[in-house]
Amino acid sequence: MSGNTFGTLYCVTSFGESHGPAYGGVVDGCPPGLALCAADLQRELDRRKPGSSRHVTQRRESDAVEILSGVYEGKTTGTAIGFLIRNEDARAKDYAAIAAKFRPGHADYTYWQKYGVRDARGGGRASARETVVRVAAGAIAKKWLAARYGVSVQGYLAQLGPRRIEFRSWQDVAGNAFFAPDAAVVPALEKFMHELRASGDSCGARVNVVAQKVPVGWGEPVYGRLDADIAGAMMSINAVKGVEIGAGFAAIEQKGSEHGDEMTPQGFLSNHNGGVLGGISTGQDITVSLALKPTSSIRLPRRTIDTRGAATTIETGGRHDPCVGIRATPIAEAMLACVLMDHALRHRAQCGDVTPPTRIG
Amino acid sequence: MSGNTFGTLYCVTSFGESHGPAYGGVVDGCPPGLALCAADLQRELDRRKPGSSRHVTQRRESDAVEILSGVYEGKTTGTAIGFLIRNEDARAKDYAAIAAKFRPGHADYTYWQKYGVRDARGGGRASARETVVRVAAGAIAKKWLAARYGVSVQGYLAQLGPRRIEFRSWQDVAGNAFFAPDAAVVPALEKFMHELRASGDSCGARVNVVAQKVPVGWGEPVYGRLDADIAGAMMSINAVKGVEIGAGFAAIEQKGSEHGDEMTPQGFLSNHNGGVLGGISTGQDITVSLALKPTSSIRLPRRTIDTRGAATTIETGGRHDPCVGIRATPIAEAMLACVLMDHALRHRAQCGDVTPPTRIG
Amino acid sequence: MSGNTFGTLYCVTSFGESHGPAYGGVVDGCPPGLALCAADLQRELDRRKPGSSRHVTQRRESDAVEILSGVYEGKTTGTAIGFLIRNEDARAKDYAAIAAKFRPGHADYTYWQKYGVRDARGGGRASARETVVRVAAGAIAKKWLAARYGVSVQGYLAQLGPRRIEFRSWQDVAGNAFFAPDAAVVPALEKFMHELRASGDSCGARVNVVAQKVPVGWGEPVYGRLDADIAGAMMSINAVKGVEIGAGFAAIEQKGSEHGDEMTPQGFLSNHNGGVLGGISTGQDITVSLALKPTSSIRLPRRTIDTRGAATTIETGGRHDPCVGIRATPIAEAMLACVLMDHALRHRAQCGDVTPPTRIG
Amino acid sequence: MSGNTFGTLYCVTSFGESHGPAYGGVVDGCPPGLALCAADLQRELDRRKPGSSRHVTQRRESDAVEILSGVYEGKTTGTAIGFLIRNEDARAKDYAAIAAKFRPGHADYTYWQKYGVRDARGGGRASARETVVRVAAGAIAKKWLAARYGVSVQGYLAQLGPRRIEFRSWQDVAGNAFFAPDAAVVPALEKFMHELRASGDSCGARVNVVAQKVPVGWGEPVYGRLDADIAGAMMSINAVKGVEIGAGFAAIEQKGSEHGDEMTPQGFLSNHNGGVLGGISTGQDITVSLALKPTSSIRLPRRTIDTRGAATTIETGGRHDPCVGIRATPIAEAMLACVLMDHALRHRAQCGDVTPPTRIG
Repeated sequence: MSGNTFGTLYCVTSFGESHGPAYGGVVDGCPPGLALCAADLQRELDRRKPGSSRHVTQRRESDAVEILSGVYEGKTTGTAIGFLIRNEDARAKDYAAIAAKFRPGHADYTYWQKYGVRDARGGGRASARETVVRVAAGAIAKKWLAARYGVSVQGYLAQLGPRRIEFRSWQDVAGNAFFAPDAAVVPALEKFMHELRASGDSCGARVNVVAQKVPVGWGEPVYGRLDADIAGAMMSINAVKGVEIGAGFAAIEQKGSEHGDEMTPQGFLSNHNGGVLGGISTGQDITVSLALKPTSSIRLPRRTIDTRGAATTIETGGRHDPCVGIRATPIAEAMLACVLMDHALRHRAQCGDVTPPTRIG
Repeated sequence: MSGNTFGTLYCVTSFGESHGPAYGGVVDGCPPGLALCAADLQRELDRRKPGSSRHVTQRRESDAVEILSGVYEGKTTGTAIGFLIRNEDARAKDYAAIAAKFRPGHADYTYWQKYGVRDARGGGRASARETVVRVAAGAIAKKWLAARYGVSVQGYLAQLGPRRIEFRSWQDVAGNAFFAPDAAVVPALEKFMHELRASGDSCGARVNVVAQKVPVGWGEPVYGRLDADIAGAMMSINAVKGVEIGAGFAAIEQKGSEHGDEMTPQGFLSNHNGGVLGGISTGQDITVSLALKPTSSIRLPRRTIDTRGAATTIETGGRHDPCVGIRATPIAEAMLACVLMDHALRHRAQCGDVTPPTRIG
Repeated sequence: MSGNTFGTLYCVTSFGESHGPAYGGVVDGCPPGLALCAADLQRELDRRKPGSSRHVTQRRESDAVEILSGVYEGKTTGTAIGFLIRNEDARAKDYAAIAAKFRPGHADYTYWQKYGVRDARGGGRASARETVVRVAAGAIAKKWLAARYGVSVQGYLAQLGPRRIEFRSWQDVAGNAFFAPDAAVVPALEKFMHELRASGDSCGARVNVVAQKVPVGWGEPVYGRLDADIAGAMMSINAVKGVEIGAGFAAIEQKGSEHGDEMTPQGFLSNHNGGVLGGISTGQDITVSLALKPTSSIRLPRRTIDTRGAATTIETGGRHDPCVGIRATPIAEAMLACVLMDHALRHRAQCGDVTPPTRIG
Repeated sequence: MSGNTFGTLYCVTSFGESHGPAYGGVVDGCPPGLALCAADLQRELDRRKPGSSRHVTQRRESDAVEILSGVYEGKTTGTAIGFLIRNEDARAKDYAAIAAKFRPGHADYTYWQKYGVRDARGGGRASARETVVRVAAGAIAKKWLAARYGVSVQGYLAQLGPRRIEFRSWQDVAGNAFFAPDAAVVPALEKFMHELRASGDSCGARVNVVAQKVPVGWGEPVYGRLDADIAGAMMSINAVKGVEIGAGFAAIEQKGSEHGDEMTPQGFLSNHNGGVLGGISTGQDITVSLALKPTSSIRLPRRTIDTRGAATTIETGGRHDPCVGIRATPIAEAMLACVLMDHALRHRAQCGDVTPPTRIG
């Protein structure tokens, strides 16, 4: 396959371009009997929707999702779940001027070289708008994981450009358009974004995602490790340049006596490993951290070449998030939920007859 | 599959346990006509071999590899390449004492809970000795990539615990057992390791890997991106806790005007993206950085539980690397080579008729 | 995955139910640059359309297909091609009476037992109407195979119940709604069908499919053989109970001196192998023959049980083909085309550098 | 992958050539805790072993299998099971004379054209000796299916050239080297084979395979149907040219009133569908029938070409079965067992929480 499907048993297939008629997806492998309706998907889609605050792209999309199959009388049937999200606010004229140039930091040049043809309108297939499909598929995974295992998957903005944000509460996260985990910093973030937008520039971000109550035992060593699949899924999100599990890069400077999480009959005493050992979940929180690069579309002039190879400059107008990381939180949650659901199914396929011998915590 | 195969077209399947009779692998999908012999694999295996210096495990293994199929009269035939590496120095008695306890930071507990049974000898399947299979498979990929496209894949130790090592030259890397890119720091590294071993503790490391001369166009958006597959492959290596492509986590604090690599007819002016845009190679160097956690097996006493769930303590004797990251360099190179070869094949499957329209650099 | 995707590099993912809002599919892996529009798919869809003659179901569907992605300015872009076919004539009331009973020969009972829930309207996911997705995907494959390699894929009705039909010409096939290869027998077929429908019963059929000008070398031994993938694809079509390649079951009674196709510098002297040796195409015609069972929905009373397990009888009204095999020809062509395209891509991935050394014929 | 792996969750990867050092395989996905030792595999391997009677190739191979991983203290651990079978009686000189010619009916020409290189010794990778890997993998599947679900998988020779053999008992099958289900016909079969060998020619065969006590519900519509996967697996066996499920090609001439299996509270009244409806097992016996072509290696002179494309003739000496179908029975059983085990795991992954609502029989 050419990369538009992911997952082994919980499979998500995606199609759609930024300025085509629609995005859509097919979720295959969902167990039957799960209560599901379009509103379940819509709730998550609304969290990542453009135009939800002044700080994200002002493109106006209702992102209304239609479920086309796989659900009957309010329950999943076990057959493929097809869904569709029509594009509405696709102003192709915004992009006509730049179709002949390659925007720095974008996939314009690489698509052009790979395929010999490209849909330049809004980035075409490379647009981050494709993440609607991930979010919809993740909404189904989240619902099943919660219903079947009590698993929750939640994320937050841990850093906006140079500003680190300490975690205070999930309530704080839910209360602001930044997904910031500390309501007190929101005014400062707004000021920062205002100045950033005024400068014509953009910034990066760090997003943290946590899965709670994941049972011990999910993950397929040695190449299909839970953390390996998480890393691959996260790095597949537009603009992600780094992924950490648990202590991540801080582990380099840790001693073994510090990093290795001790165990007692009451549970682990720390979680430097981020809930995964040997590629298998430990029963602790799974903690993931992502680095998102700054938005590539900026209003400042930049050197580039045109499609004939000649030197030129480009400034990107249009309606762009000055920090794509702000809307990445629900997307990262969705990817983690999809990977976890895939591994939940894979685990019970092979080990469905195993009674775990020793529980701690 | 249960995780012992990776790759879409260049597929590697692995088997073996630390103290079983042998490790082995099957490489499927290698093009026919590549000159190949056991010595090609052996050269790379010798680079990661235990006992190669005082600073790595003193387990004595010749790691002699036997090719069992897929090569005829010195050339690959296009059929599956099976190979075998017998275990020789498998002192199971070293492990008898700890079979009833779970070592902190190891996969002992998670395998036990997942499978209800485990081969405790030397970590069984979770042993980092499994990486012999990766290195052998990577040796084939390296050879083909070099022969067919002139691609090179090289890595080095960028940080040992708290000590960062600047890159000086690939000659320096080849000249010391640390894979350190600056020969001048080797005495200090030796002193550091000596003190670390004496303390009974361990440390983490950072390994950087670079692929040069990768053609533009490899990678399958949107889920099978080149960087996504690299991240998954790297995170599947034992002890890896973080992966960066290009600027990685530094991208968080970069401005868009700094991060987005400008282009001229002579080529890109920087490489913050690490050679991948939109999941597709740009033709620049592909740069990857890994965080490896400190070795979990240390001689210091640690709290844990036994297989009945009771509290106990454990000290790990045996023959362990105080820094597993030291030997990770050839493993990381191997994984990057396998992913690149897989994508080289995938790319020419779909886009074999495309003439890339514009070249720079 | 749960079975709604097939293919390794040319991947088809399908969703939809007989009486849901729509069927749709995603074709992933199509090379860029192929001229393509909805009419290319529509032409093939119209060949299998219900209501196209008196002898097939009178359900009225326009089967109008909409391409949603992957095509830009009349050419494929190399990204996923999503398409949609809305259901129009979905009279769920036809099925209300039988929702509580299991129709003999149908998948009612097995879906019910597997999933614990089923969409009983028109067979739900088990309806042969799903084959619209196959035909649309096959239309793309046919177009690419013809454009790139000059390959044609054509089928015909070789037997209708007890009546065998000799092959006369492809022109004859195109000229009648039975896909019968001999125009002279059409009146007799019409009479046979008329009497069959009057009797309330149904009959089986044999469909033959032939691919011409397939290059030598496609197919991946040993499990991914071209003939193995063809057999799997054909048996996945609703109602198919048998598949033959080349001589098929007649090979049982052949001698080796008869079956083994001799070669001369001018080519093979016969084609008992059906164009595949060792799982790899020979360059001859690929010949496939299918057995389709009689339509399970008949007006005669049959013994069955209801969903509570009690004995009952059932007669199936509704609008059913008395011989589902009649419309199977374009479906079988589509499946063969998809498998061939998949193997064309797989072959050039691995063997793209091979210059075939000896040509015959 | 290039075709040397099959299965989605119960995955078999194979390597080896007829005259290379060894064949081997990797079984991935076997549940942990299954009692398993080399003797379990050896028992099945001995059933297909060459030299087991006068009527099969006299090549002398002990086919002694060594398990290299995945089993600890007599039980599977859930990790990959690697196994090895060394070649012993590899007389390459037998083949030297024919390396420059293409044997009719063999894969010589197609491998040569596909790969541009071939191991001509004994057919290389195309040799039916590869089926040792299938039989070993099938032995594990058979054992698990029997232990976990009480499923049995058995086959027999239903036709030898023109001689049809009626089924009398499984005891009869076990009592003769033909796997003939009627002991009374064995003398006639021996006489037939004697005359066939004397004539220098070969014949085809039909093998039937039956799986009993398969639970209702296994199979993944719509492309991953149980019968589709069975057909693909069977057609991947060397020399197979046709596959039937249930009534097979006889369904063409059946009426719907005859073919559609009626149900009562006591069970189905017939089994024309062969235990599969809509791609899902019904709980009835799964019945499969295969056509095997006559051995291509015969002593009679045949027209062919040499590797330079010139006309020549060939007679194949060496040690060949005059009817390869005789030894196909354990191979066909193995393939069916592998497919069933794969679907057992896939089914419980997705539908592990379903309580089948209505049982019959």
